[in-house]
Amino acid sequence: MRLVTYTLGSSGARLGALVNGLVVDVERLGASHHLSWPNDMLSFIDNSVTLLPALGQCLDSGSGSLPSGSAVPVEDVKLLAPIPRPRKNIFGIGLNYRAHVAESAKSLDTDKDLPKQPVVFSKPPTAVIGPGAAIQHNAKMTQQLDWEVELAVIVGKTATRIAVVNAMKHVFGYSVMIDISARDNRRAGQWIFSKGMDTYAPFGPCIVTADEIPDPHDLRLWLTKNGQTKQDSNTKYMIFDIPTLITDISSGMTLEPGDIIATGTPDGVGAGMTPQEWLWPGDVVEAGIDGIGVIRHPVVAI
Amino acid sequence: MRLVTYTLGSSGARLGALVNGLVVDVERLGASHHLSWPNDMLSFIDNSVTLLPALGQCLDSGSGSLPSGSAVPVEDVKLLAPIPRPRKNIFGIGLNYRAHVAESAKSLDTDKDLPKQPVVFSKPPTAVIGPGAAIQHNAKMTQQLDWEVELAVIVGKTATRIAVVNAMKHVFGYSVMIDISARDNRRAGQWIFSKGMDTYAPFGPCIVTADEIPDPHDLRLWLTKNGQTKQDSNTKYMIFDIPTLITDISSGMTLEPGDIIATGTPDGVGAGMTPQEWLWPGDVVEAGIDGIGVIRHPVVAI
Repeated sequence: MRLVTYTLGSSGARLGALVNGLVVDVERLGASHHLSWPNDMLSFIDNSVTLLPALGQCLDSGSGSLPSGSAVPVEDVKLLAPIPRPRKNIFGIGLNYRAHVAESAKSLDTDKDLPKQPVVFSKPPTAVIGPGAAIQHNAKMTQQLDWEVELAVIVGKTATRIAVVNAMKHVFGYSVMIDISARDNRRAGQWIFSKGMDTYAPFGPCIVTADEIPDPHDLRLWLTKNGQTKQDSNTKYMIFDIPTLITDISSGMTLEPGDIIATGTPDGVGAGMTPQEWLWPGDVVEAGIDGIGVIRHPVVAI
Repeated sequence: MRLVTYTLGSSGARLGALVNGLVVDVERLGASHHLSWPNDMLSFIDNSVTLLPALGQCLDSGSGSLPSGSAVPVEDVKLLAPIPRPRKNIFGIGLNYRAHVAESAKSLDTDKDLPKQPVVFSKPPTAVIGPGAAIQHNAKMTQQLDWEVELAVIVGKTATRIAVVNAMKHVFGYSVMIDISARDNRRAGQWIFSKGMDTYAPFGPCIVTADEIPDPHDLRLWLTKNGQTKQDSNTKYMIFDIPTLITDISSGMTLEPGDIIATGTPDGVGAGMTPQEWLWPGDVVEAGIDGIGVIRHPVVAI
């Protein structure tokens, strides 16, 4: 299942399923079957154990005969971030790809040795923007705005001290997130300010449920700036894999439905280039993960 | 005004005002005046511009004649954290008292020079516990559990790029927070895991609205472990004052009603002692700020 959050005309944010180029409105589809289904992603995730199979069944049985008004071409809607407003901070993982650890040690102040434990940081929910929305460039704040494409893991079930063998049961699905970073805004090494500013978490275009991703540790992920490839790698190069991240975070911090873990970026960030490259107003950043989708964001001056 | 979140018997969490040792239920008091008032702190903060003066007026006029069932002695209720579930991460400020910068540089890996900008980090909302609740000690995770008493600032109005002269208008009120830290759980310098574990943000006992604190930069704050004083200082020793913190955070990250800024701790943490001291199961931590209140928490093994 591919789930989106969208608006159509002047509607508020609604939950949709992407099927053959159509956005099927989940609440309306349910209503046509006399079922009370939610119209937002977080409520759907909260109840995904029952809703996900039910929605799948409805879509399978109804393909070709969707109720009137419940499906529109994806081109006609505006996609928002799949979770427009997370309920807490996003958990980010730093230095989780070998080649990125190496480039960071050369250009930033991070260690050249591989981390022994996941490097967890956070971004506030106010950083989230949806597909197509502008990444803000505030020249008063930064002259070193950088990009990082990442696989985002969406948590489906509450997780406290979860064993590695059970960790994947807590995954609802996957999405694409760009971890935008103002490299010159780290304070005493803390990353939340440099990575947490408004618009620094482009996120989308959809959440692909876990059952549709045969191996999340073998997904090509890439990023271009103005059409030029900057990052092109594969999630198989993660140092700490997804079960390890869930086990590690939940060993101390309870994970909850709808939580987002941005699993780290491969090499090819601007700070690691010679000479270094940064994002400036007028640039366009595009990032994608095979099997999930692509997001594209202009950089604008504020 | 002193506002609390409480339960009475088997009630769910409710919003109360503390008046002369009584908890006055805000929703019920409003109902007795044919007014529809919220029963939770976040909704109250969202609408505080109108609700705060209205509640004050009702309490003044009704003192001595509160409607039946709307007021109970504070001893009879259970106080929860004033905001039991923040809508996002808590913003913490590291190294914001001179003497703590000095002790940290000697005992931890932080710089001996005063920070040039606020050192912002975060704790997830899952870390919050209310007055009296247990601080978890997980011996598998930490052998260096430490305390830090802090003045918590509660944001009242959305703040994006706010000038220093306007910053205090965005403060709803003040509370006490203990920033519990597992010093041996920092990863590549990031603090969220070490400071963000479940139960690591004891918070309460109330929110005192800004109008009742003549000078938030002249408040004694203290902490005891098993009755022995460990921290005893004053908010006047903050390096970056409250307007500066609001201006700084909001220069990049939008602050919203109900957001919490833990403004940093003075000297006297366990890591800074010779020999170092840590929290162990059986210990009791008590912390208070003059004019706000006191919270008391046992440390328990899990």
